[in-house]
Amino acid sequence: MTGRPFLQIPGPALVPERVARAMSQSLIDHRGPEFASLLKEVLDGLKNVFQTTGGEIVLYPGSGTGAWEACLVNTLSPGDRVLGCVNGHFSDRFCQTASAHGMTVETLEVPYGVGVPADLVEEHLRADKKREIKAVLALQSETSTGVVSDIAAVRQAMDRAGHPALLLVDVVSSLASIDFRFDEWRVDAALTGPQKGLMLPPGLAILAVGPKALKANQSAKCPRFFWDWAPVLERNARGEFPYTPATALLFGLRESLAMLAEEGLPNVFLRHNRMAEACRRAVEAMGLKLLVKKRHECSNTVTAVRMPDGFDSDAYLAHAEKSLGIPFGPGLGKVKGKIFRIGHLGSLNELELLAALGAVEMTLKSFGVNNPLGAGLAAAESYFLQTAANTGQGL
Amino acid sequence: MTGRPFLQIPGPALVPERVARAMSQSLIDHRGPEFASLLKEVLDGLKNVFQTTGGEIVLYPGSGTGAWEACLVNTLSPGDRVLGCVNGHFSDRFCQTASAHGMTVETLEVPYGVGVPADLVEEHLRADKKREIKAVLALQSETSTGVVSDIAAVRQAMDRAGHPALLLVDVVSSLASIDFRFDEWRVDAALTGPQKGLMLPPGLAILAVGPKALKANQSAKCPRFFWDWAPVLERNARGEFPYTPATALLFGLRESLAMLAEEGLPNVFLRHNRMAEACRRAVEAMGLKLLVKKRHECSNTVTAVRMPDGFDSDAYLAHAEKSLGIPFGPGLGKVKGKIFRIGHLGSLNELELLAALGAVEMTLKSFGVNNPLGAGLAAAESYFLQTAANTGQGL
Amino acid sequence: MTGRPFLQIPGPALVPERVARAMSQSLIDHRGPEFASLLKEVLDGLKNVFQTTGGEIVLYPGSGTGAWEACLVNTLSPGDRVLGCVNGHFSDRFCQTASAHGMTVETLEVPYGVGVPADLVEEHLRADKKREIKAVLALQSETSTGVVSDIAAVRQAMDRAGHPALLLVDVVSSLASIDFRFDEWRVDAALTGPQKGLMLPPGLAILAVGPKALKANQSAKCPRFFWDWAPVLERNARGEFPYTPATALLFGLRESLAMLAEEGLPNVFLRHNRMAEACRRAVEAMGLKLLVKKRHECSNTVTAVRMPDGFDSDAYLAHAEKSLGIPFGPGLGKVKGKIFRIGHLGSLNELELLAALGAVEMTLKSFGVNNPLGAGLAAAESYFLQTAANTGQGL
Amino acid sequence: MTGRPFLQIPGPALVPERVARAMSQSLIDHRGPEFASLLKEVLDGLKNVFQTTGGEIVLYPGSGTGAWEACLVNTLSPGDRVLGCVNGHFSDRFCQTASAHGMTVETLEVPYGVGVPADLVEEHLRADKKREIKAVLALQSETSTGVVSDIAAVRQAMDRAGHPALLLVDVVSSLASIDFRFDEWRVDAALTGPQKGLMLPPGLAILAVGPKALKANQSAKCPRFFWDWAPVLERNARGEFPYTPATALLFGLRESLAMLAEEGLPNVFLRHNRMAEACRRAVEAMGLKLLVKKRHECSNTVTAVRMPDGFDSDAYLAHAEKSLGIPFGPGLGKVKGKIFRIGHLGSLNELELLAALGAVEMTLKSFGVNNPLGAGLAAAESYFLQTAANTGQGL
Repeated sequence: MTGRPFLQIPGPALVPERVARAMSQSLIDHRGPEFASLLKEVLDGLKNVFQTTGGEIVLYPGSGTGAWEACLVNTLSPGDRVLGCVNGHFSDRFCQTASAHGMTVETLEVPYGVGVPADLVEEHLRADKKREIKAVLALQSETSTGVVSDIAAVRQAMDRAGHPALLLVDVVSSLASIDFRFDEWRVDAALTGPQKGLMLPPGLAILAVGPKALKANQSAKCPRFFWDWAPVLERNARGEFPYTPATALLFGLRESLAMLAEEGLPNVFLRHNRMAEACRRAVEAMGLKLLVKKRHECSNTVTAVRMPDGFDSDAYLAHAEKSLGIPFGPGLGKVKGKIFRIGHLGSLNELELLAALGAVEMTLKSFGVNNPLGAGLAAAESYFLQTAANTGQGL
Repeated sequence: MTGRPFLQIPGPALVPERVARAMSQSLIDHRGPEFASLLKEVLDGLKNVFQTTGGEIVLYPGSGTGAWEACLVNTLSPGDRVLGCVNGHFSDRFCQTASAHGMTVETLEVPYGVGVPADLVEEHLRADKKREIKAVLALQSETSTGVVSDIAAVRQAMDRAGHPALLLVDVVSSLASIDFRFDEWRVDAALTGPQKGLMLPPGLAILAVGPKALKANQSAKCPRFFWDWAPVLERNARGEFPYTPATALLFGLRESLAMLAEEGLPNVFLRHNRMAEACRRAVEAMGLKLLVKKRHECSNTVTAVRMPDGFDSDAYLAHAEKSLGIPFGPGLGKVKGKIFRIGHLGSLNELELLAALGAVEMTLKSFGVNNPLGAGLAAAESYFLQTAANTGQGL
Repeated sequence: MTGRPFLQIPGPALVPERVARAMSQSLIDHRGPEFASLLKEVLDGLKNVFQTTGGEIVLYPGSGTGAWEACLVNTLSPGDRVLGCVNGHFSDRFCQTASAHGMTVETLEVPYGVGVPADLVEEHLRADKKREIKAVLALQSETSTGVVSDIAAVRQAMDRAGHPALLLVDVVSSLASIDFRFDEWRVDAALTGPQKGLMLPPGLAILAVGPKALKANQSAKCPRFFWDWAPVLERNARGEFPYTPATALLFGLRESLAMLAEEGLPNVFLRHNRMAEACRRAVEAMGLKLLVKKRHECSNTVTAVRMPDGFDSDAYLAHAEKSLGIPFGPGLGKVKGKIFRIGHLGSLNELELLAALGAVEMTLKSFGVNNPLGAGLAAAESYFLQTAANTGQGL
Repeated sequence: MTGRPFLQIPGPALVPERVARAMSQSLIDHRGPEFASLLKEVLDGLKNVFQTTGGEIVLYPGSGTGAWEACLVNTLSPGDRVLGCVNGHFSDRFCQTASAHGMTVETLEVPYGVGVPADLVEEHLRADKKREIKAVLALQSETSTGVVSDIAAVRQAMDRAGHPALLLVDVVSSLASIDFRFDEWRVDAALTGPQKGLMLPPGLAILAVGPKALKANQSAKCPRFFWDWAPVLERNARGEFPYTPATALLFGLRESLAMLAEEGLPNVFLRHNRMAEACRRAVEAMGLKLLVKKRHECSNTVTAVRMPDGFDSDAYLAHAEKSLGIPFGPGLGKVKGKIFRIGHLGSLNELELLAALGAVEMTLKSFGVNNPLGAGLAAAESYFLQTAANTGQGL
């Protein structure tokens, strides 16, 4: 394959070359003074990205799955009741993690493509008269369906119900892409990986942890050693880790946090919104339907597209991969074979998105779908031109 | 600027990451055994790319301009008459190099956008009854106009005229992109740089030199030291150079030659032709006109596009650079302000070209040209789909 | 600091540039065909390094600590009795991991600097008439003390006792450096990280798992989700992972495994032995004492050196770091302040080791120790010259 | 070969990883605004390094040999008389470059290992009553012999003779390593390559040009096109080049100039002096003799060592390369086979120098020389310790 590869799965995204270069630095002593300074920069930068001053950051070599586990075993005990908001494959897996650790998960399920219903959360919590539910689990962006949920509204629902449960939020495909306010929304723990908005290769579990969660840790009875955040926080205070950290990723993280700071978080959110809307308009102009019906529930990092009737999306993706070498995300769980997902997160620009949309147009056509060539691209171009002023571009 | 940059000037093109990685290797002793082996690989690989077994390769740290100089001072003497075929800015500069070194240049000029007229070359040489003309200078691909000339036809014209002049050919923007046959066409010296079809950063002057040129070197009287190829050939035979070579570029060159060999030269030519034709169709579908009128004279590495009446192409390019950060090539010499050039050479794929064409559509529109959005992209997509079978792709 | 950095902690070691370059490749879809092929290469290569054909490889984003946890929670249940062989800081932490997960750890403690006593293991197991001990935990190389233990002897001891406990071995600082034979020694699970003999940045937990351990997994009752190896093995069989893998590290691992295969494992072991012995002789020639008394119990990856009386090793290491920017490993646990450790693992050559030993000589001197300059270096040089023939070098 | 390579030829030196990373950035349009800004930074930084405010910088893709040619053809005419100070292989080649371009070279030859004798320069110029000599050619550091000459003294000699000849100085192996003051010493043109003190891969010819040389350019009659600096200066003023520049090297140069500025030129000179003196003392402690007899004429970038009687240095270097993979510089010209040269320039630290000296000790020994192991290293260590305070290190 000549030219540069495209990778339009909803994460990992391609790593910017600034970050890749930063990661290739010679390793340093993870217990030395240079490391301590690296760690401080990274923790401070992550606090900015989580929009928290009161929370603590906890990092592990790991993955989003590991971050779920870390979040749960540090704050809860076997037998605890938790309320899991399930609207897709990954929210389901978050709940499975809780079950695997002996918690009793009560799920609040809504169809794929719909956001977490804050009113039902409120209702469910009100019904828990004895206040036995220890935590509410929710995803800000369900990567499997491209739905974004209103976490502020969930917080308000919990407040209205006067319920003391912890609010544990997965921001894997939203952090550093979609506005997330840890302090303002009083989230108790939020978790993510590095390979989405943070523009790194995968390999970390990243948490922001608030005071209530830190306190819950002291009474949490889940057995834990690697994931125990108490020694991490204690050793971080001395500029090190209780285990060997993934130094190369931390080099990269320092750089990507610097890039986000240079751009400014509000601009980062605006950019993702513009890319996402261009993608959505293009997809609709191709004659396709989005999985998410309500525009304000569409995630700005991933767009789930319904495969036209009579076509299997898995077969289509294999065709796209084979013919143009471009991967998109498959339908997972209940929508397997029925949707495909276009990732538009991380460090992506208008031209790269046009290229990816061109790939969709061409591969759909050659797969047998009767879509008009160029229509989606024209829609995206048109939207980019209309909104160029917002970006300070002279387009 | 987020995302990956685009660089659509007609060279340098973006360096493939395989090549960039190869170039980042630790330097080695340029007089040691490892270097000797590197040099051999590079010389052999270049012979393949020039399609020569009888010629020798000569490399210098330098540029295309340096390669012109090397080619001339090694084979000619001050006062020599040479015939320069001028059909653009760079062919003109090739002739200026000869003039600067005291040669008498007779130019055979044709308008920008037209190829070298083999019949006029024949006529001119026939008129040189005394056989005083020592060399014919021609460019296979005039980078400034996107015209490709038929070098085989020039050779045949020289043969028909029975003229003994050397045939010195600039293949800067054609080698490793457009079929060039050093041996078959009996070219005496051909020259290029590394930053086009060879997919490297600039910094080398590369020549293939045939037996007649090697012989001419012995009587050539142009003063020379750095460019003198005799010591280069002598030292190369011992695996080294008479000066410090640009080792990092040679590491990269070994890799890019490997990539070309893996793909196969015929496939490389086919790919460039497909990209170029997609570009040409897209440009025409946008309602624009190509500078080159005859399709078979269109270069497969660069497309020169006439700026619509009433618009200045330099101002347009500044607008494109400012609004999307994408550089295209300006009009040079006689067509300054009147054309812009789209480079589509090196390691480029369909999706990247679509992106670049999308940039043209959007920036033309926002510059005030009344072009229909999406039309060019649809034309390129359609052509890619029609020709996918030729590439072994399942599009 | 000018020049190249030195990093003589006992891991991570400096990453070879071949591996660093491999890691900088563009990310790929972790569910695509290219990834499946990468995964297969990596798993096969690791089997070679573990010297196993009957075992399975399990990989996680993680660390050595995570690998301990993975090894234990997949094979054991809360309340299980395990025998922990403790002869240093890390063997102690392995046991703490077991305790944290509810196991009852019986420790067989020997002083720091001594290997695991196979006869005492046998005795302990014989005493367990009811065969209630479920696992024996041991480290092949105790990174904190530089002791290597005879795992084959431990296996034989278990055999002699006729005890069915699992043999779970930490090979963090021995794999790919010191001979380790998973199959021949009938180890049930072995675990490591990537940042030692595998020459990568940290960020993985790597296990080899034998049939008995795989079977134990089915009845193990430790709660687990992220670390559960059953879905990993199941998904690996389809060329993917149940979570987002650390793709960049896998790119690097493929390359480092290729390097090990090119050199040949026996040569890798010989090289580490030669480096280590040169280091030991140098240290002794400086007038210092090794922590490990028995030469055959000295690890070939790390050398623990007793700080001369009256000097604190932590203060010394801070001095070395400050004055020459070179980090060595500190004394951990019971020998804190009393020893320092020289790492000589991964991709290290004679000249780099001389440089590191020179740093020891100079910084000891300037720290106030009355060591003779040059003596250690002369001893290392002399040993290198004596043993050059073994390496095929003409020294 | 495991571990990191050593490269102790007197340039190219190993490229610092900061510079290597900078060079791997994506190429940019060499006629765009980003390039203009890069060029300005590079030109300003080079002025600082040349210690000039009144001179202009001229850059070409090329080499030191090319820089000689550029320097000469821009300022002189065929038939001009020039005075060449010859004290080694490269000063001889500088003169050959002049001869090749038709100049009449009068050489002032002194033995290898001795600096340029300012008094003889004065005498020679005084004898030129008609003031026909147009230029004095001298090398600040003769890379082939490791001699440094006093350029200030040469300038004073010319002044005393009241001679208007241009002073053209090769600073290839001295710039950014040994104090060189373009303005203060009224040098007319100085030239270098990037692969020594500037810490880059080879591939550039770099000149500083003063007002008299700029004026000389206007009447100089040497034919030139590529090397003509007039169009370079003219186009540089607009932020571009008349040919395709070696952009990747310019990326690297920006970074290496930043590193030099961070360290501060006086510290850079001090560091090179310290490395060089450590090397000289080590070599003497090994029982070997330096080629240069006067200590103040020893270059701080390269040390030429006399091979002990009865041994051939070329054979020795082949042995060192084969046994430890470490290249040193051979004897060139009149001292071929009689000396070897240790390069200690660019980004090198104490530990790397120790390693290189260890390589000398070991390979001499195994080559049959009866040198005492460790003696040279002890001498270097001792010197480093004595002089640590000067460097701000706490050694």
